[in-house]
Amino acid sequence: MEFRIEKDTMGEVQVPVNAYYGAQTQRSIDNFRIAQDINKMPREIIRAFAYLKKAAALTNLDAGVLPKEKADLIAKACDEILEGKLDGEFPLVVWQTGSGTQSNMNVNEVVAYRAHVLNGGQLTDKDKVIHPNDDVNKSQSSNDTFPTAMHIAAYKMLVEVTIPGITKLRNTLAAKAEAYKHVVKIGRTHFMDATPLTVGQEISGYVSQLDHGLKAIHNTLAHLSELALGGTAVGTGINTPKGYAVNVAKKIAELTGLPFVTAENKFEALAAHDAIVEAHGALKTVAVSLMKIANDIRMLSSGPRSGIGELFIPDNEPGSSIMPGKVNPTQCEALTMIAAQVLGNDVAINIGGATGHFELNVFKPVMIYNFLHSARLIGDGCVSFNDKCAEGLAPIEANIKKHVDNSLMLVTALNTKIGYYKAAEIAQKAHHEGTTLKEMAVKLGYVTPEQFDEWVDPAKMVGEIK
Amino acid sequence: MEFRIEKDTMGEVQVPVNAYYGAQTQRSIDNFRIAQDINKMPREIIRAFAYLKKAAALTNLDAGVLPKEKADLIAKACDEILEGKLDGEFPLVVWQTGSGTQSNMNVNEVVAYRAHVLNGGQLTDKDKVIHPNDDVNKSQSSNDTFPTAMHIAAYKMLVEVTIPGITKLRNTLAAKAEAYKHVVKIGRTHFMDATPLTVGQEISGYVSQLDHGLKAIHNTLAHLSELALGGTAVGTGINTPKGYAVNVAKKIAELTGLPFVTAENKFEALAAHDAIVEAHGALKTVAVSLMKIANDIRMLSSGPRSGIGELFIPDNEPGSSIMPGKVNPTQCEALTMIAAQVLGNDVAINIGGATGHFELNVFKPVMIYNFLHSARLIGDGCVSFNDKCAEGLAPIEANIKKHVDNSLMLVTALNTKIGYYKAAEIAQKAHHEGTTLKEMAVKLGYVTPEQFDEWVDPAKMVGEIK
Amino acid sequence: MEFRIEKDTMGEVQVPVNAYYGAQTQRSIDNFRIAQDINKMPREIIRAFAYLKKAAALTNLDAGVLPKEKADLIAKACDEILEGKLDGEFPLVVWQTGSGTQSNMNVNEVVAYRAHVLNGGQLTDKDKVIHPNDDVNKSQSSNDTFPTAMHIAAYKMLVEVTIPGITKLRNTLAAKAEAYKHVVKIGRTHFMDATPLTVGQEISGYVSQLDHGLKAIHNTLAHLSELALGGTAVGTGINTPKGYAVNVAKKIAELTGLPFVTAENKFEALAAHDAIVEAHGALKTVAVSLMKIANDIRMLSSGPRSGIGELFIPDNEPGSSIMPGKVNPTQCEALTMIAAQVLGNDVAINIGGATGHFELNVFKPVMIYNFLHSARLIGDGCVSFNDKCAEGLAPIEANIKKHVDNSLMLVTALNTKIGYYKAAEIAQKAHHEGTTLKEMAVKLGYVTPEQFDEWVDPAKMVGEIK
Amino acid sequence: MEFRIEKDTMGEVQVPVNAYYGAQTQRSIDNFRIAQDINKMPREIIRAFAYLKKAAALTNLDAGVLPKEKADLIAKACDEILEGKLDGEFPLVVWQTGSGTQSNMNVNEVVAYRAHVLNGGQLTDKDKVIHPNDDVNKSQSSNDTFPTAMHIAAYKMLVEVTIPGITKLRNTLAAKAEAYKHVVKIGRTHFMDATPLTVGQEISGYVSQLDHGLKAIHNTLAHLSELALGGTAVGTGINTPKGYAVNVAKKIAELTGLPFVTAENKFEALAAHDAIVEAHGALKTVAVSLMKIANDIRMLSSGPRSGIGELFIPDNEPGSSIMPGKVNPTQCEALTMIAAQVLGNDVAINIGGATGHFELNVFKPVMIYNFLHSARLIGDGCVSFNDKCAEGLAPIEANIKKHVDNSLMLVTALNTKIGYYKAAEIAQKAHHEGTTLKEMAVKLGYVTPEQFDEWVDPAKMVGEIK
Repeated sequence: MEFRIEKDTMGEVQVPVNAYYGAQTQRSIDNFRIAQDINKMPREIIRAFAYLKKAAALTNLDAGVLPKEKADLIAKACDEILEGKLDGEFPLVVWQTGSGTQSNMNVNEVVAYRAHVLNGGQLTDKDKVIHPNDDVNKSQSSNDTFPTAMHIAAYKMLVEVTIPGITKLRNTLAAKAEAYKHVVKIGRTHFMDATPLTVGQEISGYVSQLDHGLKAIHNTLAHLSELALGGTAVGTGINTPKGYAVNVAKKIAELTGLPFVTAENKFEALAAHDAIVEAHGALKTVAVSLMKIANDIRMLSSGPRSGIGELFIPDNEPGSSIMPGKVNPTQCEALTMIAAQVLGNDVAINIGGATGHFELNVFKPVMIYNFLHSARLIGDGCVSFNDKCAEGLAPIEANIKKHVDNSLMLVTALNTKIGYYKAAEIAQKAHHEGTTLKEMAVKLGYVTPEQFDEWVDPAKMVGEIK
Repeated sequence: MEFRIEKDTMGEVQVPVNAYYGAQTQRSIDNFRIAQDINKMPREIIRAFAYLKKAAALTNLDAGVLPKEKADLIAKACDEILEGKLDGEFPLVVWQTGSGTQSNMNVNEVVAYRAHVLNGGQLTDKDKVIHPNDDVNKSQSSNDTFPTAMHIAAYKMLVEVTIPGITKLRNTLAAKAEAYKHVVKIGRTHFMDATPLTVGQEISGYVSQLDHGLKAIHNTLAHLSELALGGTAVGTGINTPKGYAVNVAKKIAELTGLPFVTAENKFEALAAHDAIVEAHGALKTVAVSLMKIANDIRMLSSGPRSGIGELFIPDNEPGSSIMPGKVNPTQCEALTMIAAQVLGNDVAINIGGATGHFELNVFKPVMIYNFLHSARLIGDGCVSFNDKCAEGLAPIEANIKKHVDNSLMLVTALNTKIGYYKAAEIAQKAHHEGTTLKEMAVKLGYVTPEQFDEWVDPAKMVGEIK
Repeated sequence: MEFRIEKDTMGEVQVPVNAYYGAQTQRSIDNFRIAQDINKMPREIIRAFAYLKKAAALTNLDAGVLPKEKADLIAKACDEILEGKLDGEFPLVVWQTGSGTQSNMNVNEVVAYRAHVLNGGQLTDKDKVIHPNDDVNKSQSSNDTFPTAMHIAAYKMLVEVTIPGITKLRNTLAAKAEAYKHVVKIGRTHFMDATPLTVGQEISGYVSQLDHGLKAIHNTLAHLSELALGGTAVGTGINTPKGYAVNVAKKIAELTGLPFVTAENKFEALAAHDAIVEAHGALKTVAVSLMKIANDIRMLSSGPRSGIGELFIPDNEPGSSIMPGKVNPTQCEALTMIAAQVLGNDVAINIGGATGHFELNVFKPVMIYNFLHSARLIGDGCVSFNDKCAEGLAPIEANIKKHVDNSLMLVTALNTKIGYYKAAEIAQKAHHEGTTLKEMAVKLGYVTPEQFDEWVDPAKMVGEIK
Repeated sequence: MEFRIEKDTMGEVQVPVNAYYGAQTQRSIDNFRIAQDINKMPREIIRAFAYLKKAAALTNLDAGVLPKEKADLIAKACDEILEGKLDGEFPLVVWQTGSGTQSNMNVNEVVAYRAHVLNGGQLTDKDKVIHPNDDVNKSQSSNDTFPTAMHIAAYKMLVEVTIPGITKLRNTLAAKAEAYKHVVKIGRTHFMDATPLTVGQEISGYVSQLDHGLKAIHNTLAHLSELALGGTAVGTGINTPKGYAVNVAKKIAELTGLPFVTAENKFEALAAHDAIVEAHGALKTVAVSLMKIANDIRMLSSGPRSGIGELFIPDNEPGSSIMPGKVNPTQCEALTMIAAQVLGNDVAINIGGATGHFELNVFKPVMIYNFLHSARLIGDGCVSFNDKCAEGLAPIEANIKKHVDNSLMLVTALNTKIGYYKAAEIAQKAHHEGTTLKEMAVKLGYVTPEQFDEWVDPAKMVGEIK
């Protein structure tokens, strides 16, 4: 490979001759040879940086501290990053400095050098028209840019991927709840037969879980909308022009179309990432919901002949490399694996969030890496589950009917007529002698056959259907 | 010990002759010999049950399904539980059936038998005036009472212990932030010297964390205010009178003075406890904040002679059994241990929440046990930390001044005057040669002494003080 | 309440007139009003301290640094603690100083003052014959005594409660595996019907899990057997007589009958508690196993009429306060709740273990609190599950036979005869047309009825039975 | 893109014309559009599959159930996978079916089709010389191959990356412990000044942690060495030739050079992955150790002027984009972020391990994904930390000496001379009046200057240096 020489405050470094990045990026590549093939800094962070670098340049221009030509060049280079044209120029990994300084510098270098080239210069020019620190990073520090990029990336992922994914699944389930609201089935508590409800009612519980989960996510957006930018090195805003923090947040809001504002307290915004911890608290709640829902569907669809067998799910692929004709609840499996991952990611985020010191939390990359991972997995996972499983869900009415008809727990309807104790006696004896409830109820003399038929009617036991 | 005979649907059981509980409680004692000395069902759950049993009786009375004498007796027995008079009658442990049925029955039995005695009866009477199932548990199931008790207990703990505790600490820290807002100190990022800020600014970050944490908790109260009661066995409300769910929630709101409402979807309310998972997500966020704050204070107060030594904390006790005269940041230690516990409890709650099946989550006791533990620990811990540490916090100004004066990072103020590279050269050379910044800056010829004094002024580097 | 005055290096303190503890214990009560009713320092730690204080006194006697009368008095008081006679004298909570210094001092005070009284003195005497620091704590620091008590308590709990509990359950399951080794049943993979195995084979998997879990626990005992005692304040052994560390460990081994040795590296032994982290790693592995086993049993016993219904479990109590005659897998529920708790405790321990600094980890109380909790819960939980559930387990052969006979996955036996593709065709068509496998196999012309009966025999599909 | 048509038991599928994979792989691509750009099935799993497919073919050959030409072709294709020649042919993600069936089929297809081409065939041939199911997957099921691949990949990663990485760091630290074993420094407990120890002693604690961590990992290798292969669909070994399980494990041991054996109990080996849970329990213990070690080093190197400043660490890169000349403990930050990740991964693994049902755990991909991630991160992270930080560590003796000389905790040496109470008085008064210990000790009349100098000698307080 051919190289050129780049310099930073520590001296000279060889970088690949055509790389848009410079000395500090190269140092990070050399210093952090940790899982470089699998743990690149998430692309969403790089894009978020492009928004903020552009916003900073424009705000600096307005404040009169950056000339128009420089601001324009910086903006143009940032646009290219946003278009994905420079994706190969961001080789750094998550496992770098905990402030993300090196990724900030990676962006500074790429923007500066690409701007230089856009301006007609050459990568090998000693002096470049745009300086990574003095121009691209003007009025900024890694310490306020990286957390700003974290919030931009997290917020965007939530509103573009996570929330739409959950909503899609929620809507499909709501339609199923409506469609099957009169299909009476056996309820199960403690995994054991219980009183009946309808298929629609059961599914409505899932919808309610997701509705609450969506509310929980929305509740955390306000904290995420606060941007650290303008705090610079330690939160005091050293080296920023007047009004900068407020203005740059406005600019970012404009560019992204999202309601970002400047953080009221910049000291918190650098030193802690409770907004990420809190928002991931909502994501883990959704993961818990999804685990429950997917488990239910997996179990209700079990069989085909020796399971519960009340729910049909689509056959998407051959299920077994050895058992011919087997179909498995694979979408449930993917979704529950995702839930497990999100619950693990939550702990990584908590530990990162709890272990900041003084003016700077230095677990930024690991926190946002896990956050984006979870937000993405939930979003993608819900869409996959929706498209390939939930949309095709349907009750298997023959089995459902058989289970309701056999159930001993219909006896509960007799509590208010003959008391809990006599009702229990009927159920226990019917169970041990293998009779139907009705046979035993009449045999014990507690009800007449007519009373039984009137009182013990599954359709009446499911309450009011909305 | 003397015994009397009690009966349930499974037959006869010996119970201690003076116990107000009956057969089902005794079966649970016998069947779950698991950590009985240390893991009793939390008292707060028992109290919450007393509210709901009373509310149910009064609602049943209004609905015409329970006679006034019975409702009054039940209410009276419940009041005694609320007054703590019957605390010894609830011997069951957390590690019982996952629906909490046995604790529901424990309450049903104690209320029924105490009511019987209040009515002039004897515990040894065969027939009692109030029946645990048919009267005390009327229009209820364990499946809707236990989650209702969970929400009542959780909500009350949050508003009575957790939020006041956090608020107390927040207010003390806010006062400290105000008091020391002009004391300029060295900032630290990456645990290394950075540009200055004030003691008040640093503390204001903690205040902001707690303010956001309080908001996060408040955001979760709406979900917690939803009560499952009225769902009975599987969420359909079987065996409840018309209007019961709405009315009983109103009654509970009246009795507790808290804004409880009936859950919109009872199927979710029995089958999942996402409200607990979500609300504990806020608690874990606060735990993360407290870990950060307490760590900072522990480290800033380190010394007395070989540490950072910028913060005075009160000497509450001798710190060492071997090192005479030692004082330790013991309140920080208790608070950070609490944070660790809360972060562990979060995982237990997540797993419990994720592992429900069909119409009933059966991890109810473990979930509420951990929730109440966390909520209590945070509340108590913040008060202890406040009273014994935060209130006595004060800057050690001599050390603070020495650290600011020595700092090399004041060079940052020169970035906008001479550029990042020359500023870096000054700092690096001053570091290696052990000089002051000013000496090196002048020696290198980048600034005059007068310029240095004007440009590099820590007090000007801390931004605008609000 | 009446008080007497006690003194420590910080001055005078009022303590209850009859309390055997003194000033430092009282300070801790006053300074840490955190969950005092529910989170006392575990009794096992107090007992472990009694062993070590006695061992230290005897070792100091042998080393000639403590006179015989004092050593004897100290030993006598320690014996009383071990007999449980002084249980009320240890009121401190987990949420104290992170070194456990206050509990060490609590023990020092109680031993000293009780010894003084045993010697004929009065609690109100100004000068006491034994001094808490200079005599009881001689050659010790909290920093080496508390971790020593942690290891003693943890090791004892593992060998006295945890391992016997797991072993009891393991042996019952092994007997069931043997008893039912020829009962052929349908296998289930992905919760769906699969090829057959026997009930005994299925249960043998649980036995193998527990066997591996027991091995995992045993593997961690060596690290736990290392004692910190002799390291004193920072690991250097300051203020200890020659040979003390080795000798005191021997003495503890003698007194406890357990193979304790002095830690090779005392700096680790004070500054980190990786032995606790590692050993709890084994406990969490067992928790994972127990969750799997208990879930299987809960699901296999589901029904009685609309579930899987292949396993009978004992009816220990009425299962529902509203559904008469309902029986639930309550022991499975308790055990899976325990598993959730242990997995949460693991995280608390990890965070505590990871957050030590320099010469001392100050998350000692929270670490050992969670460790003992887990170890106890697993031990007690396994015994309860064993006695009330596992011992009564039995296959429900009628249901088992029905499931095997209906299964489509028996077709797998044809793979090696007619190939995977044709076998798949048979299974899929039989499924969609609701026929038996045999009918479809013959109809499609792939096998003769005779071939089918010879090749597709569930009993031959379960492999060699050991 | 051009396509060809492939078929499986569910019908026809279009696959890219040059892809070596077939219908089932393509179905999985289409059905699981979840994080496809970032979460591919780990390469180590694919390589592990290549070992096992080759071993299976050779064992089938020996057993006489696969002809030599087929076995040779399969082996040749597997070798190409091992050489990395077919890396692009494995596009599937972690979030697929929980048994990993689709990745097993991906390998079956690629091996079969590549073998066909190696044999002179064309990808577009209808009939291929090797069949994915009947030949490549012969005597196997996904259910036993995927867990086998998990163990192969996990074991290899541990012995090739994790253990060597930890060992490298351990050895460097051991050399530092030896080099600085006589450099006396102040100890710190509770983050506060304590009695002295040497730099070497302090570092020896880290070495001891890593030694115990290595032992902990080694303790888990036995369980990991057990292979599921031969269990096929549910553990019974259906469709395998006699002796197959034992022989194929031997073959894998030969091919990998690692001591693999057949699992004693195949039912466990498919239904649970406790070996992964257990082994990751060792990894999380190491993560806890690394967090402690890296935190200590970060804090000890803090400054350069306002921190503790006792440890020099190498300057690898400019530390700040705004603060010129700043150097940060970036390797400590990367390593502690890794520790946070591993502790999160542990929870994901625990949940996956706990949530298996009946004969098959279907959280296989998420479990091994997290395991390999942790094992890799620890290995790579230790090497990076070693090369770029630990090797360059050195005490800053001037600061170390100043801290020792100033320390008040040297007073501990007087305990055995004048008692704990008088020693405490000296330390407290010296602290409040700002004197040296010696001045105060003499002033109070407790010792003569000569006694002080003799008794209070830091070098004597560090114990015996080994």
